[in-house]
Amino acid sequence: DLNDPGAIAARSRDLIEEYLGMEFFQRKFPGLAGEVVRRVVHATGNPQVASLLRFHPGAVEAGIAALRRGALIFADVRMVKAGINGRALRELGGRVICPIHHPRVHSFAEERGITRAAAAVYLFREQLRDCVAVVGNAPTALAEVIRQTGQGFRPALIIGTPVGFVGAAEVKARLQSQQVPYLTLIGSQGGSAVAAAAVNALISLAQGRAGL
Amino acid sequence: DLNDPGAIAARSRDLIEEYLGMEFFQRKFPGLAGEVVRRVVHATGNPQVASLLRFHPGAVEAGIAALRRGALIFADVRMVKAGINGRALRELGGRVICPIHHPRVHSFAEERGITRAAAAVYLFREQLRDCVAVVGNAPTALAEVIRQTGQGFRPALIIGTPVGFVGAAEVKARLQSQQVPYLTLIGSQGGSAVAAAAVNALISLAQGRAGL
Repeated sequence: DLNDPGAIAARSRDLIEEYLGMEFFQRKFPGLAGEVVRRVVHATGNPQVASLLRFHPGAVEAGIAALRRGALIFADVRMVKAGINGRALRELGGRVICPIHHPRVHSFAEERGITRAAAAVYLFREQLRDCVAVVGNAPTALAEVIRQTGQGFRPALIIGTPVGFVGAAEVKARLQSQQVPYLTLIGSQGGSAVAAAAVNALISLAQGRAGL
Repeated sequence: DLNDPGAIAARSRDLIEEYLGMEFFQRKFPGLAGEVVRRVVHATGNPQVASLLRFHPGAVEAGIAALRRGALIFADVRMVKAGINGRALRELGGRVICPIHHPRVHSFAEERGITRAAAAVYLFREQLRDCVAVVGNAPTALAEVIRQTGQGFRPALIIGTPVGFVGAAEVKARLQSQQVPYLTLIGSQGGSAVAAAAVNALISLAQGRAGL
C-alpha cells in the first residue's frame, strides 16, 4: 500500500538489501553506518551510490551523540533544511540553522567576491562548534567549514556531499584527510537529498529507531 | 574560480557535453530539451541520469509558455520549493505553492488514510489547472495529479520525478502514457533535486537564457 510510509520503508529496505547483498553491508558498512547507507540509497533510488559513500570511523557515533544532546544543525542551503525531519529533530531538542539568506551574508559575499554559502559559514562560524555541519550543495561552503575547523570552530560531525563536476570531488577528497568525523561520498555525485537523508538516518538512530 | 557561479556553470556544461557527446543530445534530446537535460545532469552530478529522462514532445514548449504567462508552480514537497530559483520565477510573475503542510491537508490525510502529499493535490486540485505541477518526492502525489488531470484539472505541464524502489517507477511509467505534456525519468531514480533542476532550466529558458 503506497499510502503506508512504514510499509514502504520496510519494503524499500528489503529491496536495497537484496540489490546490494548483506555481505556488502557486513564488509563495507558494518554496524550503524549501514543504516545511514540504506537511507541514502532509499533517498536517491540509486543503489550504486552506496559504493561511493565514505565514513570517518567515528562519524555515526559522533553524529548520534551530538543529536542526542540537541546539537545545532548548520545547513548550507535551504533545500537541505527542507529535507530534514524537523519534527523528529525537535523531539531531540535540536534545530536547523541555514543563514545563507541572512542580509549580512549577501553583502559580505558581494564585498569579498565569494559565494553566499561560503560567506554564511564564515560569518556564522561560532555556530560550527560542536554542531552537525551539513553541506549538500556548495563546494565553497565545505571548503570554508574545513578551514574553520582548523581555526578552532570544530563541528562534532561534518556531512559534506556537495554535488557537481567542478570542485566538488576535490573538496570532498580533502574532507577525507581531516581528523574531524566526516561523512561524504567520492566523485561528482551528492546533493541536498543525500545530505538530508544522512541527517535523517542519524536522527532516527538517535531516537533508537532504524536508519530507514 | 569556485566563487564565480557563471564560470562554474559554463565549465560544467562543457564537461557534461564532453561526457555525453554532442551526438547524444542531437539524437536523443535535440533543441531545448537538451538544455533541461544538461541542468538535471549538473544538479545530480551523474551523467547517467541523462539516458533515463523522458519528455513528452510538447513538454519544454508547454513549460516555457506557462512560465512566461506567470503560471503557478504546484510543488509536492518543501524540498522542491526550496530548490526552485524563486527570484527568477518572480521576475516572470510566477510563484510556487506547496500546500502539504496546510492544516486541512493533515486532517484530511488522517481521515482518508492517504499520504499528505496526495491529500494536498486532492484538496488544492483547482490550482492544478494550467499550472506547472512538480512532484519530486511522492508517488502517491503524482498518481493523484494524473487522476485529477483526467477530471478536468489539467496542468500545462507535469514534472514527475518521484524517487524510490516502491511504486515510483510504475507511476512514472503511467505518466508517460498520458496526453498531457510531461517530463519524467524511468526507473527508481529521481527526487526533489531533479524536479527542481528541470523547473530551473525551464525558468532560465523562459527568460531567454541557456538551461544551464
